[in-house]
Amino acid sequence: MRPKFAQYLPILDWGRRYDRGALTNDLIAAVIVTIMLIPQSLAYALLAGLPPEAGIYASIVPILLYAVFGTSRALAVGPVAVVSLLTASAVGQVAEQGTAGYAVAALTLAGLSGAFLVLLGVFRLGFLANFLSHPVIAGFITASGILIATSQLKHILGIDAGGHTLVEMAGALLAHLGEINPITLVLGVATTAFLFWVRRGLKPLLRRLGAGPLLADVVTKAGPVVAVVATTLVVWALGLAERGVAIVGAVPQALPPFTLPGLSPELVRQLALPAILISVIGFVESISVAQTLAAKKRQRIDPDQELIGLGAANLGAAFTGGYPVTGGFARSVVNFDAGAETPAAGAFTALGLALAAVALTPLVHYLPNATLAATIVVAVLSLVDLSILRRTWAYSRADFAAVAATILLTLTLGVEIGVASGVVLSIVLHLVKTSKPHVAEVGLVPGTHHFRNIDRHDVRTDPTVLSLRIDESLYFVNARFLEDLIQDRVTDGCRVRHVVLMCSAVNEIDFSALESLEAVNERLRDMGIGLHLSEVKGPVMDRLKTTHLLDHMNGRVFLSHYDAWCALARAGADTKAAE
Amino acid sequence: MRPKFAQYLPILDWGRRYDRGALTNDLIAAVIVTIMLIPQSLAYALLAGLPPEAGIYASIVPILLYAVFGTSRALAVGPVAVVSLLTASAVGQVAEQGTAGYAVAALTLAGLSGAFLVLLGVFRLGFLANFLSHPVIAGFITASGILIATSQLKHILGIDAGGHTLVEMAGALLAHLGEINPITLVLGVATTAFLFWVRRGLKPLLRRLGAGPLLADVVTKAGPVVAVVATTLVVWALGLAERGVAIVGAVPQALPPFTLPGLSPELVRQLALPAILISVIGFVESISVAQTLAAKKRQRIDPDQELIGLGAANLGAAFTGGYPVTGGFARSVVNFDAGAETPAAGAFTALGLALAAVALTPLVHYLPNATLAATIVVAVLSLVDLSILRRTWAYSRADFAAVAATILLTLTLGVEIGVASGVVLSIVLHLVKTSKPHVAEVGLVPGTHHFRNIDRHDVRTDPTVLSLRIDESLYFVNARFLEDLIQDRVTDGCRVRHVVLMCSAVNEIDFSALESLEAVNERLRDMGIGLHLSEVKGPVMDRLKTTHLLDHMNGRVFLSHYDAWCALARAGADTKAAE
Repeated sequence: MRPKFAQYLPILDWGRRYDRGALTNDLIAAVIVTIMLIPQSLAYALLAGLPPEAGIYASIVPILLYAVFGTSRALAVGPVAVVSLLTASAVGQVAEQGTAGYAVAALTLAGLSGAFLVLLGVFRLGFLANFLSHPVIAGFITASGILIATSQLKHILGIDAGGHTLVEMAGALLAHLGEINPITLVLGVATTAFLFWVRRGLKPLLRRLGAGPLLADVVTKAGPVVAVVATTLVVWALGLAERGVAIVGAVPQALPPFTLPGLSPELVRQLALPAILISVIGFVESISVAQTLAAKKRQRIDPDQELIGLGAANLGAAFTGGYPVTGGFARSVVNFDAGAETPAAGAFTALGLALAAVALTPLVHYLPNATLAATIVVAVLSLVDLSILRRTWAYSRADFAAVAATILLTLTLGVEIGVASGVVLSIVLHLVKTSKPHVAEVGLVPGTHHFRNIDRHDVRTDPTVLSLRIDESLYFVNARFLEDLIQDRVTDGCRVRHVVLMCSAVNEIDFSALESLEAVNERLRDMGIGLHLSEVKGPVMDRLKTTHLLDHMNGRVFLSHYDAWCALARAGADTKAAE
Repeated sequence: MRPKFAQYLPILDWGRRYDRGALTNDLIAAVIVTIMLIPQSLAYALLAGLPPEAGIYASIVPILLYAVFGTSRALAVGPVAVVSLLTASAVGQVAEQGTAGYAVAALTLAGLSGAFLVLLGVFRLGFLANFLSHPVIAGFITASGILIATSQLKHILGIDAGGHTLVEMAGALLAHLGEINPITLVLGVATTAFLFWVRRGLKPLLRRLGAGPLLADVVTKAGPVVAVVATTLVVWALGLAERGVAIVGAVPQALPPFTLPGLSPELVRQLALPAILISVIGFVESISVAQTLAAKKRQRIDPDQELIGLGAANLGAAFTGGYPVTGGFARSVVNFDAGAETPAAGAFTALGLALAAVALTPLVHYLPNATLAATIVVAVLSLVDLSILRRTWAYSRADFAAVAATILLTLTLGVEIGVASGVVLSIVLHLVKTSKPHVAEVGLVPGTHHFRNIDRHDVRTDPTVLSLRIDESLYFVNARFLEDLIQDRVTDGCRVRHVVLMCSAVNEIDFSALESLEAVNERLRDMGIGLHLSEVKGPVMDRLKTTHLLDHMNGRVFLSHYDAWCALARAGADTKAAE
């Protein structure tokens, strides 16, 4: 057992064992990740509608705090595409882009999200994130990727256009199509094409040219940096900014400032729901990558402590000029592959970015927005995976419906409605599925003690004994189904004298189902029919014993269904002979 | 198989076999129910905030239509207490009591409710009513009983006071306490006391005096009629109406009029949700009494056809000056006990009430409202059953929480919020419960092929084989739980070489759980550990076969857990010897 204090500070665990070997590995990983993060941070800030430095700031203190409180050895925390989109959508509803109120609202969003995550973690409520099913998450990420890519087209075309849904964006783009800036368009399309080629074609080419795998990897990762440097130089040398190419412009040359999130009740009320959504989505994205990487080294992730780590990171972002952050998939994998051994790698990355913030920011003055947009488009298109539609369709129509609804509604009505509908739909479909459970009438497989479905197997039955195997927990959603089912099977004229419910797959009987069983028992008694149970599980039986059902039951509880058969079936003698 | 047409018209079924014996029994039942319904109809109209004749009208055409479309032989349809309360609450939000708009809105509510019920029935969606768990219904009915009784105090005190929640009502009563009409108070209290005595003390007294059980029963049922006649005579003879006693006043002497519900989009929008709530609550109340009575005679209720029957009744109410109706518990039991054999008894009751509407209405002119209020108070207090709190507490904390929340929120925030919160809470608690399923590590019971929980039984295990029995379907809510659980059990240093999941109680594996299994499989492979499944159910296996999981699985699927043990356990030789 770890002591209670250290439980909330995982740094005490790995910090004690830190050595020179780990230091070297962490430093190498930090350099590679820093190079990758500089353009990415600027780009995601652009996506969130914030000034470019917000992206850098959101990558410094949050990483440091996660290194103290987080449990993953490889997770890299910072601005990510989907959370940036959610930020733009939420903050865009309460303030105008470019105003001071917008930046303050983004801080508030990070603060609320951080507080919510910490609360979830302290009360160990991380399992609530599971209400987002995998298909809903996959659908949401895919739709978000499409939305994000579309939202960046305006920067590549060099026009002004807004909108938060696909329809709004397409409409705005079409309306301003006449204002395309041809130079921006050329720059944007060339950069996009270059980045796609780096991602798809460069690595195999380098390998064919004889480069080692590590070198090929580092060069490929540096692709966005090359694009940034090249387009900045072109814009600066040719004076393209004066010819209408939108550029990043002046970025303050400073360490992250101390900032205060706005906490007016009205702002908090408006941002509370989006903050919860961002927290949950961010946590789900982060925890799955953290677990995948931890498993590769037989390490352990504590989901509730992860909530605290991510919460601390977001609170840090709120007070240092950032915006909501989470563990990013791409950067974490890069960090892991580059050999990061402990969260100290993250701390070194933070140092690298702090250095960039004070030393490199003047250099990005002439960086065209189109380059950043191209970086985003290329990055997010890897999130788009429409195959989830085909795969869920093949496996389960309910899961397909949840994915399809999430994608459709996210694209047409926005991110909040899309993901909320997905969650509600997947819950309702699950309840509907369990509301009509599979119930098999079973009979004895000759020569055994086993009972099987009479429709699938050649089994022995007795017209006076109705044996039903219920393949579902009994709870309110299907309680009445059981009443109807039994009433259907024992109406006028049938010869049934005993109904035996085989409960081997009944994991729970809730109060509604208990009352239904009592009602069934009374109705069967009025008909002169016995009600029996068999193979009731321990925990279920423990609970039934606290009630009057067993006392009033017009029948018995049998340990095995075979016991019930022997006691009740008329053909008892035959059965014995058949053994 | 019944023909398709007759399926929607159960009257064709029983109508063909109707004979003189059934006619006699139905007529007797109709007389008794009519005597009971006249004061009740007036009283419930008062509760719903409508003129008294609305209660009579709501009891005529709806009963006739239910007789044609309904499947219960004994259900008596008409105004009931809880639905009247819901009507007052819903209509009170869109119109002022006593205005023409109020009556029209009540018609609209009945029309929407009828249409919704018919739709549910035609699309066979009656199971959706099951989302209301028994504890939520019990809590709601109890809280409604308290609300209704409280709402009638103003009539017994003779003051003007409003309010839809307990707090509002208590405040309004206290504020007007100075305006109590002493004569009304005496009348009201005396009538309430008399009715309580009739209900509790009269029947045993009559039996002791030598009356037969049937006579004692009929006299007891006539109690409210006696109270109505006596107090009407007192008010008329002593001229109490001039001394401030509120009376029913002029009631039109006519058959139900043809009316049109208001269908303005605004009104429909405002009443749509309350109409759905009224439909579901009414259906749930009605179906449970119908099924209980049907079972006593081995008859069958078709829940979806019941929806059509109740829907037709409500549509009838909407076009004949009524308001929302459903199958009442008390009157249906009276109808059944009095010997009703077919829905024709209902039709005869409708005739009796039609006769009352044209002949008896002038006689109730001097009937004091306090008498009707006393009738309601005595009737609804039998609905109040706080023992549900104790019973659910003893059985399951989750069910207790749902009841307690429903009662508390219905009383304090109103009926709609109360019942909605109960539904949401019971669904969430169910999901939370299944999110952390019972998982037992199992071992072999020596000398058998059975595997049991290692914590409860003396069993044989193998340190290299981890056998886990999962007592829950695997779906999105607990998918990640499984990942965490397995990761927890096979971290650094343990000797586990094989993980076997025993799936005998797994009734479903959804797409999220499938992906979790794939992730678990990959992580275990990274650790050099095998993942195996045993005792997978037929339908679950059918679905798994459509996926790649089985191809990629770093292990096998075993028919029985014993097969898995024999194949994987190092102590295979010992096991054989132990047999």
